[in-house]
Amino acid sequence: IETKLPKVGTTIFTTMSQLAAEHGAVNLGQGFPDFSVPERLVEALDRAMRDGHNQYAPMTGVPALRRAIAAKTERVYAHRPDMDAEITVTSGATEAIFNAIHAVVRAGDEVIVLDPAYDCYEPAIDLAGARAVHVPLDPATFAPDWQRVKDAISPRTRMLMINSPHNPSGAMLSAADMDTVADLLRDTGIFLLFDEVYEHIVFDGARHESALRYPELRERAFVISSFGKTYHCTGWKVGYCIAPPALSAEFRKVHQYNVFCTFAPAQHAFAEMLDADPAHYDQLGAFYEAKRDRFRNQLLGTKLEPLPVPGGYFQLVDYSAVSELDDFAFCRWLTIKKGVTAIPLSPFYESPPPGQRLVRLCFAKNDATLDAAIERLQKL
Amino acid sequence: IETKLPKVGTTIFTTMSQLAAEHGAVNLGQGFPDFSVPERLVEALDRAMRDGHNQYAPMTGVPALRRAIAAKTERVYAHRPDMDAEITVTSGATEAIFNAIHAVVRAGDEVIVLDPAYDCYEPAIDLAGARAVHVPLDPATFAPDWQRVKDAISPRTRMLMINSPHNPSGAMLSAADMDTVADLLRDTGIFLLFDEVYEHIVFDGARHESALRYPELRERAFVISSFGKTYHCTGWKVGYCIAPPALSAEFRKVHQYNVFCTFAPAQHAFAEMLDADPAHYDQLGAFYEAKRDRFRNQLLGTKLEPLPVPGGYFQLVDYSAVSELDDFAFCRWLTIKKGVTAIPLSPFYESPPPGQRLVRLCFAKNDATLDAAIERLQKL
Ligand SMILES: CSCCC(=O)C(=O)O
Ligand SMILES: CSCCC(=O)C(=O)O
Repeated sequence: IETKLPKVGTTIFTTMSQLAAEHGAVNLGQGFPDFSVPERLVEALDRAMRDGHNQYAPMTGVPALRRAIAAKTERVYAHRPDMDAEITVTSGATEAIFNAIHAVVRAGDEVIVLDPAYDCYEPAIDLAGARAVHVPLDPATFAPDWQRVKDAISPRTRMLMINSPHNPSGAMLSAADMDTVADLLRDTGIFLLFDEVYEHIVFDGARHESALRYPELRERAFVISSFGKTYHCTGWKVGYCIAPPALSAEFRKVHQYNVFCTFAPAQHAFAEMLDADPAHYDQLGAFYEAKRDRFRNQLLGTKLEPLPVPGGYFQLVDYSAVSELDDFAFCRWLTIKKGVTAIPLSPFYESPPPGQRLVRLCFAKNDATLDAAIERLQKL
Repeated sequence: IETKLPKVGTTIFTTMSQLAAEHGAVNLGQGFPDFSVPERLVEALDRAMRDGHNQYAPMTGVPALRRAIAAKTERVYAHRPDMDAEITVTSGATEAIFNAIHAVVRAGDEVIVLDPAYDCYEPAIDLAGARAVHVPLDPATFAPDWQRVKDAISPRTRMLMINSPHNPSGAMLSAADMDTVADLLRDTGIFLLFDEVYEHIVFDGARHESALRYPELRERAFVISSFGKTYHCTGWKVGYCIAPPALSAEFRKVHQYNVFCTFAPAQHAFAEMLDADPAHYDQLGAFYEAKRDRFRNQLLGTKLEPLPVPGGYFQLVDYSAVSELDDFAFCRWLTIKKGVTAIPLSPFYESPPPGQRLVRLCFAKNDATLDAAIERLQKL
């Protein structure tokens, strides 16, 4: 049968995880922690099941969780969204991104995506019958060139997608960036989708500039986050979308008939965690900053050149001093011959910058895992 | 903003559950059990979390679960699907239905839906830019009139959606029906979507005629089921789709970028349950048959007239002897004035049969709940 999604193959994350498993490589590819979820969270989920929270959650999410998200948002971003009209719990950020696109993007529309971009954006746009318009970030700093974004806007532009802290680079948008986005979108009908799943993983005293801090932005934004990165449980798939009432209404029409609701006991568990232990996400930056610094120092003893990492849990490295292979071939070679798995950057681009020799390593790992990888990387 | 889904409002299930809660009514509306999930399942999920299965599951589903589904399918339907190429685990049957439609239904296509139909079918079709073509089931027996289905087929028909045991009526498709479907679809490019989430809830010694039993059907079918109904956990949202390799490949392209994977610990828990306790689903029919019979006998002592229930966990009743209200108004009145919540049938139709006085009651409830409802219904 003729495919509706000719560009879609197996994701690079699955491909590389499989290759890592086949060759017994240390897997720093696909982004997931190899340490435990908080014991308290497991206990809370256990209690939720035993308390009988095993039937359909409300379509918008368990009220206690939406209330906790509203409270957390107010505490962190000084803006309290309305738990009833503006917050929807989803099956991870991926479903939320899919829903937001399908809620407002129509056949023939254009959506501006900043490359490199996480791989789930474009297929969702394609499936909505729309077209992704790719604008490259600066190849060295991964900062947006807003003039190029402005030039990419057309009468068909329906949405701008941004992501900070940025996957794969870790780059963060500044307050000045947010003001510029506000200027760009003012008096247009363009919606903003802000993927901020790494919101609590920020370093060096920087502040995450959530769209929720900016009244002019949040009135047109789908702000999307998830608990997978914050609570070390990428396989639990509980995310959420915060959007103004009219946008949330459209978002919910899709969510209602896409998955309806997500695993109910986990919703109760996250509600309990958010209320009981705000310290958890407050200390998350410091927790990962220590890992980043340790890993970076170790990398400096190899031939790989680490780029700066302002946020998130990925380290980009330049491998020019090691190999002239393209990034795909380098990642295969590194896995098969050297026993360490990385993610090439090309799949994050419509057209990768020629000659770019960057790959992504995930440092959301136990020190022992990172040490094992470094031991191998030192031999390059 | 102009909506993409003008027909979508709050689902009747949410509306009626809210009304039930407001008025303290016995809620026999939205379909969910009010009894516990098997203790063994809770323990298995607990163990999965503690064993560290908290990161992304494979996109297609945890291998142990896909293997268990293949084995169960072989045991029950004498056909073993390929766990790698043909089975995909989803966030409930709802996501599976959404994905199957988006995988193959294109803008401008038509999808045949038999009315009354579960409410998530049409919005997914609309969102794919296609059109639902409604063919009514027999208003008395809820049997399909295959000649009318045949007449509804056009060059644009891309998919036929069927559901057995049927929600809301409980009607079941026979082996003769399946042969007729095979005749109808032979030499066409029309796909079949078979929603069989109530597959194990069948009564009176009847056999569920899964499309998987029919080689000619399964080669063009997305067969969709879930564990919510089978293990009394509608809020756990683990479902699956069985489809031939080429269809599964397209299905997975959507799933991969819609939710990617579903709550990992539950996948491990269901794998364990399916392997360890096939008796659970084997006795499910008897378990619900006892409830059906008891509830039906009780209803015979009221002015509501129960229709036959071949499968599923819903009882249709005719309220003509009680009221001349339309079904919406009757359900509101029954909730507010009489303290029992039912679901009207009109929302399951494009055009409800004029003068139909049927509502749906869910008997997946503890005897005490059903007794409390009956006590109130006796006063009608
Ligand atoms: C869903 S697999 C991809 C995980 C991830 O976020 C990443 O590695 O970038
Ligand atoms: C997702 S709420 C609807 C539950 C259900 O299957 C029904 O009541 O028919």
